[in-house]
Amino acid sequence: MMAAPAAALGVHLRVLAESERASAAQVVADAPVGKAADDDALRALVAGDVPGASGDPVPADVLTFEHEHVPGDSLRAIAAEGTSVQPGADALVHAQDKIVMRARLSELNVPVPRWAAVGSQGELAEFLAAVGHPDPDPSLPDRAPRAVVKTSRGGYDGKGVRVVAEPADVDDWFAAAAAGGPALLAEELVPFTRELAVLAARSPSGEVHTWPVVESLQVEGVCYLVTAPAPDLSPETERAAREIAVQVAEGLDVTGVLAVEMFEVNGSVLVNELAMRPHNSGHWTIDGSVTSQFEQHLRAVLDLPLGDTAARAPWTVMANVLGSAHDQVTDALADVTAADPGAKVHLYGKDVRPGRKLGHVTVSGADLEQVRARAEAAAAILRGGPGPIYWGESDG
Amino acid sequence: MMAAPAAALGVHLRVLAESERASAAQVVADAPVGKAADDDALRALVAGDVPGASGDPVPADVLTFEHEHVPGDSLRAIAAEGTSVQPGADALVHAQDKIVMRARLSELNVPVPRWAAVGSQGELAEFLAAVGHPDPDPSLPDRAPRAVVKTSRGGYDGKGVRVVAEPADVDDWFAAAAAGGPALLAEELVPFTRELAVLAARSPSGEVHTWPVVESLQVEGVCYLVTAPAPDLSPETERAAREIAVQVAEGLDVTGVLAVEMFEVNGSVLVNELAMRPHNSGHWTIDGSVTSQFEQHLRAVLDLPLGDTAARAPWTVMANVLGSAHDQVTDALADVTAADPGAKVHLYGKDVRPGRKLGHVTVSGADLEQVRARAEAAAAILRGGPGPIYWGESDG
Repeated sequence: MMAAPAAALGVHLRVLAESERASAAQVVADAPVGKAADDDALRALVAGDVPGASGDPVPADVLTFEHEHVPGDSLRAIAAEGTSVQPGADALVHAQDKIVMRARLSELNVPVPRWAAVGSQGELAEFLAAVGHPDPDPSLPDRAPRAVVKTSRGGYDGKGVRVVAEPADVDDWFAAAAAGGPALLAEELVPFTRELAVLAARSPSGEVHTWPVVESLQVEGVCYLVTAPAPDLSPETERAAREIAVQVAEGLDVTGVLAVEMFEVNGSVLVNELAMRPHNSGHWTIDGSVTSQFEQHLRAVLDLPLGDTAARAPWTVMANVLGSAHDQVTDALADVTAADPGAKVHLYGKDVRPGRKLGHVTVSGADLEQVRARAEAAAAILRGGPGPIYWGESDG
Repeated sequence: MMAAPAAALGVHLRVLAESERASAAQVVADAPVGKAADDDALRALVAGDVPGASGDPVPADVLTFEHEHVPGDSLRAIAAEGTSVQPGADALVHAQDKIVMRARLSELNVPVPRWAAVGSQGELAEFLAAVGHPDPDPSLPDRAPRAVVKTSRGGYDGKGVRVVAEPADVDDWFAAAAAGGPALLAEELVPFTRELAVLAARSPSGEVHTWPVVESLQVEGVCYLVTAPAPDLSPETERAAREIAVQVAEGLDVTGVLAVEMFEVNGSVLVNELAMRPHNSGHWTIDGSVTSQFEQHLRAVLDLPLGDTAARAPWTVMANVLGSAHDQVTDALADVTAADPGAKVHLYGKDVRPGRKLGHVTVSGADLEQVRARAEAAAAILRGGPGPIYWGESDG
């Protein structure tokens, strides 16, 4: 989704694609194949895998990311050799390691759920006693949830996150951690009213912009519906949420787009997760904002002046297409375009797998209920089945 | 500019690129190099130059165009072999040959300037006597313009168009026509108030949509500024203009996007030129309409239901960047983004040449004067020089 704004700005995009069939390789002309964890592949990407206009390889001016799974050591070495790496490895680590992130946000006095790094059953028991429901509590069932345990690295879309009732619930993770796997952290179960997200962009020169705060509806740990702006949000909470995003962007020296996922609890906000890249909670900006998160990310990492983040319509709702009953999601193209001539369909060129993010639909307008209903209906046609997540016949 | 909507709709785009450095080749992964006039290149394009997912060449479902210079015989043969060609050769000829177009529009009773095919000085003298200023007219200078002569084929952006005072002014074209070059037609000089354009899209199933009528400001025969919708347009003229576009689309069996350029003369409209493809007068739709002309063209040629053509803002103005004083137009990227964070910049990946269309800028908003001033100012920064057309130091 960065390809269109890159073309419009005259920015040559060279993407390290996981395979020749990867989404990016389908739509970017210069897409060498390799793994982001492979130092050689990263260096070839930066050096220029393909001949440029002159016939010689053209090295990249800037290296940036669409996911966090890129080794910090490689990035530091590449930066030391003179390539601009945005965000830098010292910022990116906060999106790679939840313990590092929580510790740094706590230092900055950014509101976060109560949390602790837990290295053993004993430490988790201590945390549960401190923040969980009183134990034993006769009013609660034996297996009442009491906290969230997360792996510090490698989790996404609900993976690496487990709601626990007692320390033994993550025995397997403790064993994995002891064997060199990711460390664990425990967090209080936040009784949130809803989830919000704030998207910000910051350039190396220090310019920071935020977009309107959005409401994010998650189903089974996966983002399903984003409403922009978040309905019924008090001006105070809106301001606080945006200020936190700016504070995080500056405090962590983030460059490019930063997504800050938050819990709203009685008008206050707590930071849940961070991403340092264009993020699902910001896909609404492609159609719904003057400057999309993808264009803004390019501007930011290239240290160009940032674009206007105003909304283009009173309401914009984005619905994810998570799995499909169709053989290919494109099989539903005629039906979805016939059903709603104003729904903006964005497919990712992926084969159907249960629950997989295959695309999203955006609808803008003046009537929130109508806009939301249209976005959900269009996504349902592409999904070809009931419910926000259609797991298909052969749920894997 | 078709690449982004193709990706979003999950449509694989294979483009015949003029060279490896062509604009399309920079942004489309599957871009074999060849000439549109080369039958072998067209057939390889349709057959599939590169392996698809299965490892075998994947033939195209639909063949369409971004310019008119594609031989009708090749298209008829390809269509006869079972590939959907949109628009078909029998429609496309009206965008290739102005005499064929004028004759057919006259048959359909579509209002056009008075015109005649002229095969000789004598026929042109006859036409001038019939529609031109009376000759001799003592109130006019000797060389007063009296009609427009056009080559029936091969003209664009003011090329192949000459304002004449007397038959000898196109002696060279008569000589060229006699030697097998394009035939000539003469048209009255229309005392137009302004130029309008109507964009329509029609699918093979017969669904037709038009966008709001726009005003097009031409400088030296080249489109410079497009204002959407056309200011101060009477509802009657708006309706008449849209109806003419629908009549032309249906009467000529056009599929895909059709641009109808018109003269407004005292509230009436006359058809000037046709294009059967996304057109410069419709670039405003990328940012200014719910469905861009590029997405709509894809929908139409694939016979998908068409999208909503409503404007997304009260006013949208598009300014072309015609030539630049910068070595590369991207050299002005920081300046233009700093000057106007809401201006949408679209560059075409072309090297600078005097007067060349290097890109365009779009601005949307509620205040027409402000929107127009912003679009012109942003284009001027990219141009790096005064006036709508900056011809540069070394005007060729």
